Amino acid sequence: MNVLAIGAHPDDIELFCGGTLARYAQAGHSVCFAVICDGSGGAWGVPAEEARRLREAESLSAASIIGATVHHLGWRNHGIPADDSALLQLLEVIRKVDPTVVISHAATDCYLDHQRTSRLVDDAVSLSTVRDIKTESPWLPHQPGLFYMDTTLGLSFRPNEYVDITSVIEVKRAMLECHRTQTSLVFENPYEPSIMEIMEMSAFFRGIQCGVQYAEAYRLEPRWDRTMIWRLLP
Amino acid sequence: MNVLAIGAHPDDIELFCGGTLARYAQAGHSVCFAVICDGSGGAWGVPAEEARRLREAESLSAASIIGATVHHLGWRNHGIPADDSALLQLLEVIRKVDPTVVISHAATDCYLDHQRTSRLVDDAVSLSTVRDIKTESPWLPHQPGLFYMDTTLGLSFRPNEYVDITSVIEVKRAMLECHRTQTSLVFENPYEPSIMEIMEMSAFFRGIQCGVQYAEAYRLEPRWDRTMIWRLLP
Amino acid sequence: MNVLAIGAHPDDIELFCGGTLARYAQAGHSVCFAVICDGSGGAWGVPAEEARRLREAESLSAASIIGATVHHLGWRNHGIPADDSALLQLLEVIRKVDPTVVISHAATDCYLDHQRTSRLVDDAVSLSTVRDIKTESPWLPHQPGLFYMDTTLGLSFRPNEYVDITSVIEVKRAMLECHRTQTSLVFENPYEPSIMEIMEMSAFFRGIQCGVQYAEAYRLEPRWDRTMIWRLLP
Amino acid sequence: MNVLAIGAHPDDIELFCGGTLARYAQAGHSVCFAVICDGSGGAWGVPAEEARRLREAESLSAASIIGATVHHLGWRNHGIPADDSALLQLLEVIRKVDPTVVISHAATDCYLDHQRTSRLVDDAVSLSTVRDIKTESPWLPHQPGLFYMDTTLGLSFRPNEYVDITSVIEVKRAMLECHRTQTSLVFENPYEPSIMEIMEMSAFFRGIQCGVQYAEAYRLEPRWDRTMIWRLLP
Amino acid sequence: MNVLAIGAHPDDIELFCGGTLARYAQAGHSVCFAVICDGSGGAWGVPAEEARRLREAESLSAASIIGATVHHLGWRNHGIPADDSALLQLLEVIRKVDPTVVISHAATDCYLDHQRTSRLVDDAVSLSTVRDIKTESPWLPHQPGLFYMDTTLGLSFRPNEYVDITSVIEVKRAMLECHRTQTSLVFENPYEPSIMEIMEMSAFFRGIQCGVQYAEAYRLEPRWDRTMIWRLLP
Amino acid sequence: MNVLAIGAHPDDIELFCGGTLARYAQAGHSVCFAVICDGSGGAWGVPAEEARRLREAESLSAASIIGATVHHLGWRNHGIPADDSALLQLLEVIRKVDPTVVISHAATDCYLDHQRTSRLVDDAVSLSTVRDIKTESPWLPHQPGLFYMDTTLGLSFRPNEYVDITSVIEVKRAMLECHRTQTSLVFENPYEPSIMEIMEMSAFFRGIQCGVQYAEAYRLEPRWDRTMIWRLLP
Repeated sequence: MNVLAIGAHPDDIELFCGGTLARYAQAGHSVCFAVICDGSGGAWGVPAEEARRLREAESLSAASIIGATVHHLGWRNHGIPADDSALLQLLEVIRKVDPTVVISHAATDCYLDHQRTSRLVDDAVSLSTVRDIKTESPWLPHQPGLFYMDTTLGLSFRPNEYVDITSVIEVKRAMLECHRTQTSLVFENPYEPSIMEIMEMSAFFRGIQCGVQYAEAYRLEPRWDRTMIWRLLP
Repeated sequence: MNVLAIGAHPDDIELFCGGTLARYAQAGHSVCFAVICDGSGGAWGVPAEEARRLREAESLSAASIIGATVHHLGWRNHGIPADDSALLQLLEVIRKVDPTVVISHAATDCYLDHQRTSRLVDDAVSLSTVRDIKTESPWLPHQPGLFYMDTTLGLSFRPNEYVDITSVIEVKRAMLECHRTQTSLVFENPYEPSIMEIMEMSAFFRGIQCGVQYAEAYRLEPRWDRTMIWRLLP
Repeated sequence: MNVLAIGAHPDDIELFCGGTLARYAQAGHSVCFAVICDGSGGAWGVPAEEARRLREAESLSAASIIGATVHHLGWRNHGIPADDSALLQLLEVIRKVDPTVVISHAATDCYLDHQRTSRLVDDAVSLSTVRDIKTESPWLPHQPGLFYMDTTLGLSFRPNEYVDITSVIEVKRAMLECHRTQTSLVFENPYEPSIMEIMEMSAFFRGIQCGVQYAEAYRLEPRWDRTMIWRLLP
Repeated sequence: MNVLAIGAHPDDIELFCGGTLARYAQAGHSVCFAVICDGSGGAWGVPAEEARRLREAESLSAASIIGATVHHLGWRNHGIPADDSALLQLLEVIRKVDPTVVISHAATDCYLDHQRTSRLVDDAVSLSTVRDIKTESPWLPHQPGLFYMDTTLGLSFRPNEYVDITSVIEVKRAMLECHRTQTSLVFENPYEPSIMEIMEMSAFFRGIQCGVQYAEAYRLEPRWDRTMIWRLLP
Repeated sequence: MNVLAIGAHPDDIELFCGGTLARYAQAGHSVCFAVICDGSGGAWGVPAEEARRLREAESLSAASIIGATVHHLGWRNHGIPADDSALLQLLEVIRKVDPTVVISHAATDCYLDHQRTSRLVDDAVSLSTVRDIKTESPWLPHQPGLFYMDTTLGLSFRPNEYVDITSVIEVKRAMLECHRTQTSLVFENPYEPSIMEIMEMSAFFRGIQCGVQYAEAYRLEPRWDRTMIWRLLP
Repeated sequence: MNVLAIGAHPDDIELFCGGTLARYAQAGHSVCFAVICDGSGGAWGVPAEEARRLREAESLSAASIIGATVHHLGWRNHGIPADDSALLQLLEVIRKVDPTVVISHAATDCYLDHQRTSRLVDDAVSLSTVRDIKTESPWLPHQPGLFYMDTTLGLSFRPNEYVDITSVIEVKRAMLECHRTQTSLVFENPYEPSIMEIMEMSAFFRGIQCGVQYAEAYRLEPRWDRTMIWRLLP
């Protein structure tokens, strides 16, 4: 089947669901990333255009580790528009990929771009089967299942499904390490954790919660047009 | 694996999770019923002792259809005691059966006996692995997974998992029809639905919600010592 | 008194509150429909302009059965704008109708247009008494009471009031049957219920919940500027 | 119809729903008080037996103002037993009174006796129609409607219905003033409000919320065996 | 430290957090008001431009009582735009003021402008530390703490912190009385409370709740990038 | 002031609030532990009486590190009685200690003894000021503030206050290490974390959330008779 992970910025997908995607890929499924913002603002001290190129390349490197493809929607960080232009753009991506599973941010995530992405994805998945909204690709016969992925340090997030990523933890590490612009950030606060530390702690913590060494956590909200009767997660 | 369904009264198991149990049985799993109250009060106009025998026999008939065994705990309707005697009795049943999955009433169910059963089951499952509470059977190495089953007409219940029971709907009907004392009740209010009507409507309604003809609905609340990383439901 | 029902698409009003409106009309109240989207996209295979005309005519037929009038706001399905233009348009409708009761979709409804309509209505009702927002009709002295109507199959909706529609169930059926473009839809999934089946099941199910043969369900959320001390529903 | 108000202590009924009861009485309905605890501990410095007699007499005086009768269940403050003896006693009172409406404390009230009373009442109302639980009076054909009354200063309470008590505010004041042991209490904290001040403030505050001079606030939680389709409050 | 209160209209700050700001000012902190809308529509019968000037002057008078400065953002009542222009404007104010504490409306407030202001503030505080969103003033090293202030009559608001304003109640009264256009409004409903009555009742009511004569109530929602380990309120 | 921490078993206090207690002690406050169950069942393979003595001694060692005293209530694990005998026993402890702050388990904790302890503590704190419930020590003039402490791995717990324990992390480690019967347990599941690992991870994780190296997390639920207007935590 086709699996589509949608992140607000380059590195969000790797950080929150990279292990699960690695397991999907290993099982022979086709995996695709969609990245809403270009992340140019997150590479401190680097000119915007160069930052954009750098981060796009980092995404491609990470995705290539598991043989995934990447769609960059190209909005600036904190530049997701209030009108429906990004919604229609994302709708086309979803229809083109034709996924069985979509994974994205939860509405309770504390970052503004993550919240807006969560809303966009929820709306675009709902519209994917609507015949009279024309996009380049045709409307889908069924809505894909939608899973919300974990938040930074799990705050304001109550998972109800877990994926054991013990066997692919090295793959997840390698994917995240592709994001050099992020792993090399130096914070003023000495106790502010690096992106690698956040990932390690989350994987360990979520593992304990479900009785394995490393895990990722998800939330499925039931909806009558999306509820599934078999497990979609690996 | 072993599956244990725990109902407050005879017929609750058949009504709310009979189809799922039929599917477990068909898949070769061992199914067991535990019934907390004797239901003697629910056979209107029949003396208590006779009612108790009748309803016990009805349970056994229903269970035998899918090859299940039955434990009757024997409390009177609305007679579940406030002290821990029923808790210890149920704990022994759980340890004896050694289930991988337990199914019982939700705490939000509107019937008093269902609420008390829900609380008993939650506590007994928690205690099943505690070494220093001695019962005849030994403590369990792992807590079983605990699913809450649907409520009457689905009120105050938000499911997050469904089981397709289309292939076993006739088995479910047959199980419920064993409860003659209940299917033959005549209500004063002509619009009060019979137990068979409630079952038919629920199976149809839950089916629509998940895209099949007939379904049963469940809720799994995540807990760190119970959360599972694969689907336990059929 | 004046009663205003506001639906996202043609047929939503008939489906979710048609029986209640019939009872209001029988009691001599003046009933008005406002329909936000033209529903042109919901008549599969019919050109947009023709579909729009067809569905507008279906609305008028249904409303005429109970002597109601209809305001078509005329936005395309999924075309409710993100700026405040639809809000001001709806505000004028509310002020022109000057209703004591407004009925519309709940915010928890799973359809995107229903959610946006719910938000529009909540905002427009709040603004109806604000003097400095000028519309053609004058500001209202009191906010109307606002009731949320049921969702498809009652999912994610907890009613706190019911209306007995047993005496008008045939009227409700007749109103919904006016929507031929919708009742004639053929779904690929053989278990996907038709709009008439959804209506029948909901009316029966909600009836059981409140002890009558057929009912419609509502939710009133208390607000200090809208709370009422008598029952507004029939 | 018969109306039964159930308070944890003498004065709770007068404080939280006295105005509503006065309106019921004026409309010709039969009103009954049931008081769970004897309040002997709340008359500081008075020996228990004398306090009990005093407070019982205060209840009777207050009830007589609106022609209501009183059942004293006679438990000590904070002495409601954990087993089912008080439940069966209250069940008999409910069946004897045969009320259409029951009013009692909300489960979210911060006082322990109020919480236990709320639980007792919820359970006893549920059991009132159960045939096989024998009490002196016969089982009821229908469960009465159950309303939760306001809490002290409205904390942790979200009402969804209001009753206008403007016309009976003097009656409410007179009823509460019968409780001399309580109105005469002197607190060490000079800002701790007297029972009369709490009543005045609540009546005024709830009045503003629903647009009248004085009001009392209630919450009705929908339940399938209790939901009503007409307004039971005056 | 710097304290920034952000209100939807002139007088909201004085009404909901004026006492707390007076205490901050007395303790030597620097206090700033930001007012999103010009309030021109709230001065009934006064031409918009004159109303705007009047209400701006009223704000300045009130702020001057405690030595605070005021930023008027100047949007019309109910004219906060749906795009990000107000967000960026407010972001610049926050960065310019560089506050340790921000106080604004809760998302559960029933007024539309208050809800939109709440959302704007939450977003702007989140963006204050984001380097790549350029405004005239530089990005902040740390997000300020954000407190939600009380709602009108406390509806739909559950405070978790209180500030004793007994010592500054006269200052609060004086600040609110500067808003002559509001204190002089005459309502048609004789029981509709004036702004001064709402303030008095709220201060008294919140005082009782925390054991002092007069108080203001707040809610702090924990967030991982904002949570504090000492008390920021006076 | 006096601080009273109430744990279900020996080691709960050290694990969940040991650092905070160390800071209280350093600031010169008087700290007391109350332990409801004897923990005899948690020392696997050791006879009950010996286990009881061992664990009691471990508690005393841990408490002595910060100069705290200990009350052992002596119930068996999972043996807290359903009647009010433990409640009255705990009430006497609270009155004897006369604390300004009480810390105990949250009601959402997943362990049965923790839940029962949480309920006991909530009730006993409520009763501490009730004059007519006689215990050996006199009733208290004011209810102490009540904080809920963290749960195992923070599941089902949303803190709203934090305490920086960076300066006392070694003290906390030393206190927990006194519980040799627990630190020496060997689990069959190689990924099941030891009590020391749970503590380290929680302290680190909660530290990140509030911007320090190590922290403990708490939740204060507002109640009108307990709400405070200054910070009670260190």
